[in-house]
Amino acid sequence: MALIVQKYGGSSVSDAESIKRVAKRIAESRRAGNDVVVVVSAMGDTTDELIDLARQITPLPPSREMDILLTAGERISMSLLAMAINSLGVTAKSFTGQQAGVITDAVHGKARIVDVVPSRIRETIEKGSVAIVAGFQGVTRTTNDVTTLGRGGSDTTAVALAAGLGADVCEIYTDVDGVFTADPRIVPNAKKIDRITYEEMLEMAASGAKVLVLRCVEYARRYDVPIHVRSSFSGKSGTLVTNIPLAVEAGPSEVEVAMEAPIISGVAHDRSEAKITVVGVPDVPGTAARTFEVVAGAGANIDMIVQNVSAASTGLTDISFTLPEGDGQLAMTALNAVQGEIGFGSLQYDDQIGKVSLIGAGMKSHPGVSAKLFGALRDAGINIEMITTSEIRISVVTREDSLDDAVRAVHSAFGLDGDGEAVVYGGTGR
Amino acid sequence: MALIVQKYGGSSVSDAESIKRVAKRIAESRRAGNDVVVVVSAMGDTTDELIDLARQITPLPPSREMDILLTAGERISMSLLAMAINSLGVTAKSFTGQQAGVITDAVHGKARIVDVVPSRIRETIEKGSVAIVAGFQGVTRTTNDVTTLGRGGSDTTAVALAAGLGADVCEIYTDVDGVFTADPRIVPNAKKIDRITYEEMLEMAASGAKVLVLRCVEYARRYDVPIHVRSSFSGKSGTLVTNIPLAVEAGPSEVEVAMEAPIISGVAHDRSEAKITVVGVPDVPGTAARTFEVVAGAGANIDMIVQNVSAASTGLTDISFTLPEGDGQLAMTALNAVQGEIGFGSLQYDDQIGKVSLIGAGMKSHPGVSAKLFGALRDAGINIEMITTSEIRISVVTREDSLDDAVRAVHSAFGLDGDGEAVVYGGTGR
Repeated sequence: MALIVQKYGGSSVSDAESIKRVAKRIAESRRAGNDVVVVVSAMGDTTDELIDLARQITPLPPSREMDILLTAGERISMSLLAMAINSLGVTAKSFTGQQAGVITDAVHGKARIVDVVPSRIRETIEKGSVAIVAGFQGVTRTTNDVTTLGRGGSDTTAVALAAGLGADVCEIYTDVDGVFTADPRIVPNAKKIDRITYEEMLEMAASGAKVLVLRCVEYARRYDVPIHVRSSFSGKSGTLVTNIPLAVEAGPSEVEVAMEAPIISGVAHDRSEAKITVVGVPDVPGTAARTFEVVAGAGANIDMIVQNVSAASTGLTDISFTLPEGDGQLAMTALNAVQGEIGFGSLQYDDQIGKVSLIGAGMKSHPGVSAKLFGALRDAGINIEMITTSEIRISVVTREDSLDDAVRAVHSAFGLDGDGEAVVYGGTGR
Repeated sequence: MALIVQKYGGSSVSDAESIKRVAKRIAESRRAGNDVVVVVSAMGDTTDELIDLARQITPLPPSREMDILLTAGERISMSLLAMAINSLGVTAKSFTGQQAGVITDAVHGKARIVDVVPSRIRETIEKGSVAIVAGFQGVTRTTNDVTTLGRGGSDTTAVALAAGLGADVCEIYTDVDGVFTADPRIVPNAKKIDRITYEEMLEMAASGAKVLVLRCVEYARRYDVPIHVRSSFSGKSGTLVTNIPLAVEAGPSEVEVAMEAPIISGVAHDRSEAKITVVGVPDVPGTAARTFEVVAGAGANIDMIVQNVSAASTGLTDISFTLPEGDGQLAMTALNAVQGEIGFGSLQYDDQIGKVSLIGAGMKSHPGVSAKLFGALRDAGINIEMITTSEIRISVVTREDSLDDAVRAVHSAFGLDGDGEAVVYGGTGR
């Protein structure tokens, strides 16, 4: 008998039929003798519809009111799900983020969880009932105001509750079978990853894999909560995210192999970044630092950085960096304002870039990996614009329109292609 | 400068445009220097849509979960309304029933307010902001569970808050201009009533007038909260419900007239009752009492009662009573179960009845009133099946299909017909 936290996204509870299907799965978990806590997102497009309603009222709604509005979505899905479970003869009670003890800071719209006090949830499961908790929301400690956690908030709620309750596993149900070696929409024969470490999953998430958001994996790593990413549409086992590398749990002969060769987890990609190039920067100490200080001060998140070798004749260099497209306007404005101070020539903005990342353990110690990666891209006729590497990741920037080809070329070069087609079930949840 | 509680029903906030219109009215009240607290219902058909969703899940949802589901409706309307008011440059904050301090008993689906602790509301208006409060909902004191107040719950929330805050007036905005001398859909030239006492309003509500529900008027009378029923679609003054009879505030000559003649407030009607006749009851002491004990024990609300004169030859009598149609099945089942004990012959159930009521002060002391009423019905060819009277009301039961004619005949006989047509604006709110 285990204590399991399950999280179902919006696409898993998009209508009455889906809710009944999910309820059946929860009731089975409970009947198998497990203690079950369920975190649920708003039904299907509810959140988008509520945002649209707010836009009809005003283009700039106060964030406190926006949070109250949006949390109506989970209120609907959680009560319906509790009804559906009860109708199967298993008792279930639903709880708002507040009732579940999810305490956050007061940053409406993207609050961070500061504490989890799940006493009512604990009482509920001790009585043998299933506890349904609204994802994506919490409450401020002092003013008792409702907050939302922003993107990936429901996954984070689930992991935070699992940590607070000391759960054995946090099951994240989604519309795909798990984490894949690449996006199956781009690489149809991508394989499901059975096990992956928090660190690799962090790199996958940071590099554009959409299944789990970064903050949720960070939270799970900090509190060592095993995450099981799996499909709500099938009974198959999915991807287990833990702190244990694959090699350690493998049999003796496999360990040997694993410790020799780098373990490639998968290929991630990201279309959401833009590139800014600062042209003609005086190549003197401190200018690069000042440039990034200005960008960071504007609230923009810098990802990759490339500084070209200075042309000896001019003493000028170019600095390129990538950042989320949404931060582009901010960064450009901030940099324009200090053109005189820094003394650069001009700014170039380019949002037609894509990033492909190879993730796996032991890359730095295997120089052959990057050589193979660059070779595969060259053979596919794809130009590399920027490169960064970490202990477990190599990322390259390409033109956006050759990104899909790049993902397929890398995936194939590293022998990740499977035999069959990956099964994908539709849209993505919150 | 006054403290005003305003309540807007679902039809006043049915879409973004209506919400903006209501926001403008609220902002005007605030700008005129008033402290404004607003109670709002769910948008248009939201509640019905949520009930429908629950029915798709299960025919018998747990009442606790049903309450959580339904309160999502007010969450949406209250936050949108707060956004709309803020966009007009007037600060506004929305509050759930819990945040507003509306404490109820734990009877989910039809909870009663047991206390109102509006400290956050008071703080908000003291800071010069408008406070928007979700109608129809509260929270239990001990378990912190969400409850709904049942039919007319938003009106009752408004009156309870007005009482708790010591407001100068509670304005109930609806889609008609106020309380009319009869339903304008039946009597097109019915007149708006300018002033009416709590007692008369209670009789109007109990007799089927839909504008205010009984419990809301009862609450207002107990705490002496003046209610102003008015239209959210026009700027006109509506109907003021207070403890002050019309005559007292009228000028000297009018007082004289008023104190001589009975003051007729209006004609109410009700189609929602059914009649049960217990045929052949032994005419011995205690049988009638036992009959009504059984019906009450089944949870049915008895309204009117008629016991026929016993036929001397048989020693048997018939007892008829009316009750809400919804309670009919309960009462019939309960009575059938005691047929042997009570020893009656049979039961008759009739839901094709209508009730017309004449409401006004000083009826008992003016026997001419009932004579005029019966005469008007006779002249219109309408048969009277049952009669009850109180100090300020006479009600008669007729066939349902002659109810409209009965209302018009009585309205006209008592000189209530106005010159023009009453203005009505569409459906009714919650």
